[in-house]
Amino acid sequence: MSKVAIGARTLLYPLPAVLVGADVDGKPNFSAYAWCGIANSSPPMLSVSFQHKRHTLKGIKQNGTFSVNIPSIELVKETDYCGIVSGRDTDKVADCRFNIFYGKLGNAPLISECPVNIECRVLHILNLGSHEMVVAQIEEIHATDSCLTGGAPDANKIKPFLWAMPPVNQYCAFGKPIGEAFSIGKQLKA
Amino acid sequence: MSKVAIGARTLLYPLPAVLVGADVDGKPNFSAYAWCGIANSSPPMLSVSFQHKRHTLKGIKQNGTFSVNIPSIELVKETDYCGIVSGRDTDKVADCRFNIFYGKLGNAPLISECPVNIECRVLHILNLGSHEMVVAQIEEIHATDSCLTGGAPDANKIKPFLWAMPPVNQYCAFGKPIGEAFSIGKQLKA
Repeated sequence: MSKVAIGARTLLYPLPAVLVGADVDGKPNFSAYAWCGIANSSPPMLSVSFQHKRHTLKGIKQNGTFSVNIPSIELVKETDYCGIVSGRDTDKVADCRFNIFYGKLGNAPLISECPVNIECRVLHILNLGSHEMVVAQIEEIHATDSCLTGGAPDANKIKPFLWAMPPVNQYCAFGKPIGEAFSIGKQLKA
Repeated sequence: MSKVAIGARTLLYPLPAVLVGADVDGKPNFSAYAWCGIANSSPPMLSVSFQHKRHTLKGIKQNGTFSVNIPSIELVKETDYCGIVSGRDTDKVADCRFNIFYGKLGNAPLISECPVNIECRVLHILNLGSHEMVVAQIEEIHATDSCLTGGAPDANKIKPFLWAMPPVNQYCAFGKPIGEAFSIGKQLKA
């Protein structure tokens, strides 16, 4: 098992591919992001990092709110498209034929077609260099009812996907189960 | 497409299942974490959120360094085990038969058996409530040479996995490719 030092770089598996939305100058805009994760459990928080120039970030700073929408594998084209073009140049909502709704926060746009929609309120913004990391409280979550099992969002029904970075550079579906969490490790405990 | 408000909670897909390591009182310890993500591109940074009481966090504060180790699907039992038990009660390195090495930082323990090992230096710690979010600079990455393609870490060879939270509550392998990133969306652009 020979190791090679490959230098400092952004690398993590798995990486999400989510659609982050904000009203920018009063108009809903969405872009695809992979630099995000859960930040806190109680109260629930997540973080998303944005390049300074990003159009969505402008709207987040205008409103102090944004949304994280989890696309299903059926929306892979739309997700990728939202990461390729800028809301400065085109109306991505129209281009993707998204239906938009608003929830508890009132000004965080949500995509009906995405099975999970997370409403977020900004708490902290850290300027880290190339990116600003926005830490936000999760204020409400909306889910498509057909994607729930016993009231909880079910990944088997949501069919979310991930981004496997280059050299693979593919969006991938979730694969086969390899073990039950907080359980399979007990075999080692014995 | 009827929507249901399911309340604020921690929810995101995909979620990682990585082994975060630190020397605690001079002894290497590892635990499984899902609350982590990339935070910045240049310089490269990531964040991991820890409950205050976590043994690994004690070591991170002692040294200002830690590691993020990406396990392959062959290590799912060991990964889960490291999330179930505490380093206060047992020597997880011995229990999992991990071989440990050190890299550039000198005191961030790395697991040989994990195909990717990320050395991190602490920059910021945010107390967010239940968790402290540690933002860290990625200082060096080590990879098992058989997991590289053209010098870059290749997810098809690394075989990382993800955690699909309850009600699924399974670790899952990466699944089938559903589209090329920064490319498949161009079909919508036309």
